[in-house]
Amino acid sequence: MTAKRHIRQDTAGEAGILYADVRATTDELTAPLAPEDMMLQSMSDASPAKWHLAHTTWFFEEFILKPRSASYRSPDDRFAFLFNSYYVQAGPRHARDKRGLVSRPDGQAVLDYRRFVDDSIQRLLQEDRADHVEIAELVELGCHHEMQHQELLVTDLLHGLSYNPLMPTYRDPAPCPVTDEVPLTFTRHDGGLTEIGHDGSGFAYDCEGPRHKVWLDPYEIADRPVTNREWIAFMEDGGYATTPLWLMDGWAACEKNAWDAPLYWWEQDGAWWSFTLRGPQPVNLDAPVCHVSYYEADAFARWAGARLPTEAEWETAFRNRPITGNFLESGTLRPLPGGSPWGDVWEWTQSPFSPYPGFRPPEGAIGEYNGKFMVNQFVLRGGSCATPVRQMRPTYRTFFYPHQRWQMLGLRLARDV
Amino acid sequence: MTAKRHIRQDTAGEAGILYADVRATTDELTAPLAPEDMMLQSMSDASPAKWHLAHTTWFFEEFILKPRSASYRSPDDRFAFLFNSYYVQAGPRHARDKRGLVSRPDGQAVLDYRRFVDDSIQRLLQEDRADHVEIAELVELGCHHEMQHQELLVTDLLHGLSYNPLMPTYRDPAPCPVTDEVPLTFTRHDGGLTEIGHDGSGFAYDCEGPRHKVWLDPYEIADRPVTNREWIAFMEDGGYATTPLWLMDGWAACEKNAWDAPLYWWEQDGAWWSFTLRGPQPVNLDAPVCHVSYYEADAFARWAGARLPTEAEWETAFRNRPITGNFLESGTLRPLPGGSPWGDVWEWTQSPFSPYPGFRPPEGAIGEYNGKFMVNQFVLRGGSCATPVRQMRPTYRTFFYPHQRWQMLGLRLARDV
Amino acid sequence: MTAKRHIRQDTAGEAGILYADVRATTDELTAPLAPEDMMLQSMSDASPAKWHLAHTTWFFEEFILKPRSASYRSPDDRFAFLFNSYYVQAGPRHARDKRGLVSRPDGQAVLDYRRFVDDSIQRLLQEDRADHVEIAELVELGCHHEMQHQELLVTDLLHGLSYNPLMPTYRDPAPCPVTDEVPLTFTRHDGGLTEIGHDGSGFAYDCEGPRHKVWLDPYEIADRPVTNREWIAFMEDGGYATTPLWLMDGWAACEKNAWDAPLYWWEQDGAWWSFTLRGPQPVNLDAPVCHVSYYEADAFARWAGARLPTEAEWETAFRNRPITGNFLESGTLRPLPGGSPWGDVWEWTQSPFSPYPGFRPPEGAIGEYNGKFMVNQFVLRGGSCATPVRQMRPTYRTFFYPHQRWQMLGLRLARDV
Amino acid sequence: MTAKRHIRQDTAGEAGILYADVRATTDELTAPLAPEDMMLQSMSDASPAKWHLAHTTWFFEEFILKPRSASYRSPDDRFAFLFNSYYVQAGPRHARDKRGLVSRPDGQAVLDYRRFVDDSIQRLLQEDRADHVEIAELVELGCHHEMQHQELLVTDLLHGLSYNPLMPTYRDPAPCPVTDEVPLTFTRHDGGLTEIGHDGSGFAYDCEGPRHKVWLDPYEIADRPVTNREWIAFMEDGGYATTPLWLMDGWAACEKNAWDAPLYWWEQDGAWWSFTLRGPQPVNLDAPVCHVSYYEADAFARWAGARLPTEAEWETAFRNRPITGNFLESGTLRPLPGGSPWGDVWEWTQSPFSPYPGFRPPEGAIGEYNGKFMVNQFVLRGGSCATPVRQMRPTYRTFFYPHQRWQMLGLRLARDV
Repeated sequence: MTAKRHIRQDTAGEAGILYADVRATTDELTAPLAPEDMMLQSMSDASPAKWHLAHTTWFFEEFILKPRSASYRSPDDRFAFLFNSYYVQAGPRHARDKRGLVSRPDGQAVLDYRRFVDDSIQRLLQEDRADHVEIAELVELGCHHEMQHQELLVTDLLHGLSYNPLMPTYRDPAPCPVTDEVPLTFTRHDGGLTEIGHDGSGFAYDCEGPRHKVWLDPYEIADRPVTNREWIAFMEDGGYATTPLWLMDGWAACEKNAWDAPLYWWEQDGAWWSFTLRGPQPVNLDAPVCHVSYYEADAFARWAGARLPTEAEWETAFRNRPITGNFLESGTLRPLPGGSPWGDVWEWTQSPFSPYPGFRPPEGAIGEYNGKFMVNQFVLRGGSCATPVRQMRPTYRTFFYPHQRWQMLGLRLARDV
Repeated sequence: MTAKRHIRQDTAGEAGILYADVRATTDELTAPLAPEDMMLQSMSDASPAKWHLAHTTWFFEEFILKPRSASYRSPDDRFAFLFNSYYVQAGPRHARDKRGLVSRPDGQAVLDYRRFVDDSIQRLLQEDRADHVEIAELVELGCHHEMQHQELLVTDLLHGLSYNPLMPTYRDPAPCPVTDEVPLTFTRHDGGLTEIGHDGSGFAYDCEGPRHKVWLDPYEIADRPVTNREWIAFMEDGGYATTPLWLMDGWAACEKNAWDAPLYWWEQDGAWWSFTLRGPQPVNLDAPVCHVSYYEADAFARWAGARLPTEAEWETAFRNRPITGNFLESGTLRPLPGGSPWGDVWEWTQSPFSPYPGFRPPEGAIGEYNGKFMVNQFVLRGGSCATPVRQMRPTYRTFFYPHQRWQMLGLRLARDV
Repeated sequence: MTAKRHIRQDTAGEAGILYADVRATTDELTAPLAPEDMMLQSMSDASPAKWHLAHTTWFFEEFILKPRSASYRSPDDRFAFLFNSYYVQAGPRHARDKRGLVSRPDGQAVLDYRRFVDDSIQRLLQEDRADHVEIAELVELGCHHEMQHQELLVTDLLHGLSYNPLMPTYRDPAPCPVTDEVPLTFTRHDGGLTEIGHDGSGFAYDCEGPRHKVWLDPYEIADRPVTNREWIAFMEDGGYATTPLWLMDGWAACEKNAWDAPLYWWEQDGAWWSFTLRGPQPVNLDAPVCHVSYYEADAFARWAGARLPTEAEWETAFRNRPITGNFLESGTLRPLPGGSPWGDVWEWTQSPFSPYPGFRPPEGAIGEYNGKFMVNQFVLRGGSCATPVRQMRPTYRTFFYPHQRWQMLGLRLARDV
Repeated sequence: MTAKRHIRQDTAGEAGILYADVRATTDELTAPLAPEDMMLQSMSDASPAKWHLAHTTWFFEEFILKPRSASYRSPDDRFAFLFNSYYVQAGPRHARDKRGLVSRPDGQAVLDYRRFVDDSIQRLLQEDRADHVEIAELVELGCHHEMQHQELLVTDLLHGLSYNPLMPTYRDPAPCPVTDEVPLTFTRHDGGLTEIGHDGSGFAYDCEGPRHKVWLDPYEIADRPVTNREWIAFMEDGGYATTPLWLMDGWAACEKNAWDAPLYWWEQDGAWWSFTLRGPQPVNLDAPVCHVSYYEADAFARWAGARLPTEAEWETAFRNRPITGNFLESGTLRPLPGGSPWGDVWEWTQSPFSPYPGFRPPEGAIGEYNGKFMVNQFVLRGGSCATPVRQMRPTYRTFFYPHQRWQMLGLRLARDV
């Protein structure tokens, strides 16, 4: 997780509204799940839904209630150990990849824990206290933390359900509407000396700053992400079997994992299908391609005679453009409407996740910081249909390893002028 | 699983009583479990309780109802795929180690499936049919199959719960009574030309026969299994660190897994504790040692100046002795009463699991046969506190790999005269 | 390695002649090798030729010269560490699989070491000493130890050379003569109570005894090993793709290693070829099949409607039959002459390598003992074209893991009557 | 390997002098080696000396002699397969990690191959041809390629020899002189909009360009690399056991590999020793630390309250400073003289190895290009005591994975102003 950088000077009332809203959204997300579904952990990168529910709750308990509320008593002191993602060094029996083996407390006990903490937080926010601004800021941070886990909750769930030969539906099994193909166009940017990074107003994570100067050569960037239609053309042209298109490590990953299509895809009677949160669905040709790794995105861009943008190019191009995230209504990727700029799918950039010049991880911060992840990962920009709209901003940097595919990861092309 | 060798010529009525009894016992075993507990799969050797419930039910459906009942309709045709342990070649997405990822059908749906098959079987047994003896035999076989899974169900559950830092209790958390130490004595057998193997009366698995001649030199065999008290003496004498006591492969396993005590043991305030189905319990010094591998048992025997018995020695010594299995009342290992002969813990023999002379796997048998396991495993004799009493007979051969420890595995000493 | 069981009461003169003969044979075996060839180590199961040369020499130094010759000074004290197969616990930098990284001492230095020890041993044998019988016995043991390493030296070398795309020839590149097909016939044995194991006259290893009684049911055993012609029929019948023919662990090994023919075979222009010590050679249809694992041998026997013999059956059948080992003249497998009984290829038995009744590893023995290998391996009987004739006797038990193939391993069929 | 970017318009005569000089240096480097030493391959990252000798020769044959000299006949057509690092897809039997198993051709045959190609190249250079400038450029490229392999040859050799418990000496076993401690000082740079990358004059690899603008904030950079004395202080302060100093992936590597000192170090009688090309040597306190990974360098910098420089900061600071590489005279790291700027040890930067803006891998280039390595690796700048002086230039970018340590890798501190 991540430490805050700037928190709005919110009033306690606003914090309480945000808190109630975010917590209710999490509950809505798990409403369709059986207790058994909430146990699924299909790999160590993913966590069970029950763990997400408990961990986000523990965060409020650990960093707000325990240090600030003299009267607070945890319903079970052992939860701090069970649901603390930070104590990874606590031994193999409680390693990250064993979260799916914690059958007790059961799902109902975790929901009770959530309600208990909810009540305590709302009571605390209503108290007349000297530190009410700090508390409001901490609540805001906890809400952003929980929103990150909302996205993980559904993508981890999709991965877990994908191992069930019955291919169960999470919700909303109706197929997505089919729309017209959107032609691929590019917008030119002149570059020059510019600034990127968060400017200090509104919430942001530490790694989004400091705002700093960067020189950009002129470039073009596509007006929409790459679509499934284009990806199938790459596949049909032998993209997954053409070594020179790939980075050396990418080719090794492609061979080792026998990649020949995006994650969750299969061919059936001459058509491509995909396993989604809506269950099995025909691949929608004009929706953005999703569940591709950096290695695949990079190979595709080379095949297309283009390249991935840098994060500075991306931010410069989109900092003044509206977003189109639509999580709560869609649950899966819709076809792109004409002119849809960004927010349907995370977009790989060619930028390794590195510190901005002058970056200092916060001292004495809440928990750990983004800094320790600043190696071997690549930045993605934008946001996906699984990202809460409140989380989307042009300076947001998410990051994954170049082989990972289980998140909602796609790409957009760029090219030199 | 295993094919039958000899089935009692039972009447349909007796089969129905056996069936009802065995099925009710399985239900009793899972009664204390939450839906979440029934999902636990902690390694590929183990299966979730829910899978055991469904797989044993599928067995009756597949081998009796589908081929013999014209009117039978499965409540869900996909269960045959999901709960068939035989279709291992069905691909990685439904590999054996992914059984814990089948959240749907949920626990209730599996219980409904059990009830549906129960009704169908009992109705079939009451029909006036030409093949009623064959059906009764198949029902008996299915019941023995289910009894094997009853033992696996609780041992797999224990393994799954052991990863929970809260160390949950399965049931009956009261500690076991403490008794007096039972001295170690041996009984001498003269050996000579003898016969072992099942003689054809009553139920047995194919691998228990043919009954055949074997020559035995004179030997002595202990009157009780090795106890925890003796095992601790081995540990305190440096048994786990003394290379020459170990087989070469055993030493490699010991080092790789950092074994220094039986599975589930830990030291606390100078005393040894063990995680059991009753939750954490102090190690009962005069109970038989349990959860030790063949490698450990072999090293212990060498340390004790003795050896493990062969399976022929074991069978010859115990074929006329009463048993002491006590699963439903104990749920864990009690201290040994004086003179308790066998049935508290499985006993490693030095005999690799090989075919008896003249063994032929049954043709066209139900499912697969024991024959394909006849390599790299060792025979254990007896039975444990988790073994249904009906399963215990002196000719029964169970078998595990020499590194495995999660079953209720102990040992008894033997020596040359 | 192994400790002796019975040593002939030889005179020093006879020991000296044996010593000179065995050592000269080893030198002959390495004569065709370049210094670079002597470095090859292609897997941890195999050792470089240089290591074999040095290790067998170290054996005489360590167990005879150092304890018995007051005036002996090793040419380099560090050789005891480098060439001692027993100090496996000396740390990762000198692990067994790093023997190929010991470039110094170089090949010439190892040959000088051999000569130095040769002179010292011969001088010691000529001394007038009270312990001359013991010394002669130790020299005989060391010679048998070196003969074991002669076989390993050439089979390890074959494995090492097989990684060279140039497929180099060890020696004698002429093809083997082609002969007529020998029909497959069986000889019947009545079984009954019999005895197997070494009877105490002549040299034998500890694991060949004690001689002991064993009951055998009547059986038939083939008069020659399985040939390449028969193996190809198995392959053409889909033997490598027919799961039910295989043990479960065997099938897993077959799939994991993508076995579809014996080791070193490939198909070229419709014919099968094999890489041998004579370089690439067409597979000789009537030579015994070689380089097959236990798993393959077992599957073949099942396919052929037969089984592998037990070691007791094998020994009973062949204890009075002459052998046909022919290492020094052949260097590779010749076609079987009519009536050739055994000694061309090691023959897998269905017997796990277990202690005979009453077996006790020798106390205070030279080095370690066979006992520690008595798990997870299977006995082979006979001997191969790479086995020194002096090593072949009907009681000899060699043993390998069921997946291993790089030795000269074949099979012979047996069946119940 | 890498394709050229800019080649000097050299005359054939100058190319011939360069060629003779570079080839003679390679021969000098292998002069102290026995045939057995030339076979060592201790990991797949490293190659045997014999392979380096042959591969660099094959390069001249493949890209110059075969396409340009009508009369050229290779002494052995199979060498093109054996010594071509590019045909990695040729199958497992000739995988990169099996280079140590090619005992034939032996060392002398490879030297003969070198002489044959040398003569052919020199004859070609003396011909009166229309393409003599192109040929001279290709020869220059081949010489730079061979210089890269000179550095690998000795670092791979050091790694191979390190597995020999005898710790052999490559050459020059005298200890290095001890000098005075050099205090740590920093130089301030103002930053601003600047340019980095190769400007097109003289030889450079493709990845060193295009020259491009970059903005730098003000920074300070140390006047010398970190020394062993400073590294020991880090170790004594618990640096290898302090999780918060490390990147997450770095900590995982540290734990997995049990790092507690630079590669090749050990403690003996209270002092630190290191295995070097001069054999075992006491660690020279005022020599630059060497054989540390990116992860360790990054943790050290954090411990020191500083950071690693970016490659742009490094290049800007040192582009006008003389170098101090001293390979042929030293063979190992000497203590730093006062004021020694760079060239003793490669210096990790915090810059991932990414393409410069506008980078295009050359089309139809000789062999493959740097581009395919542009993921997961970090740039190092400078050069080491094992780098030929001709290879050192301020724009040179070498790159390694963050866990690698067997090259001569150290670091220099930087900090924000």
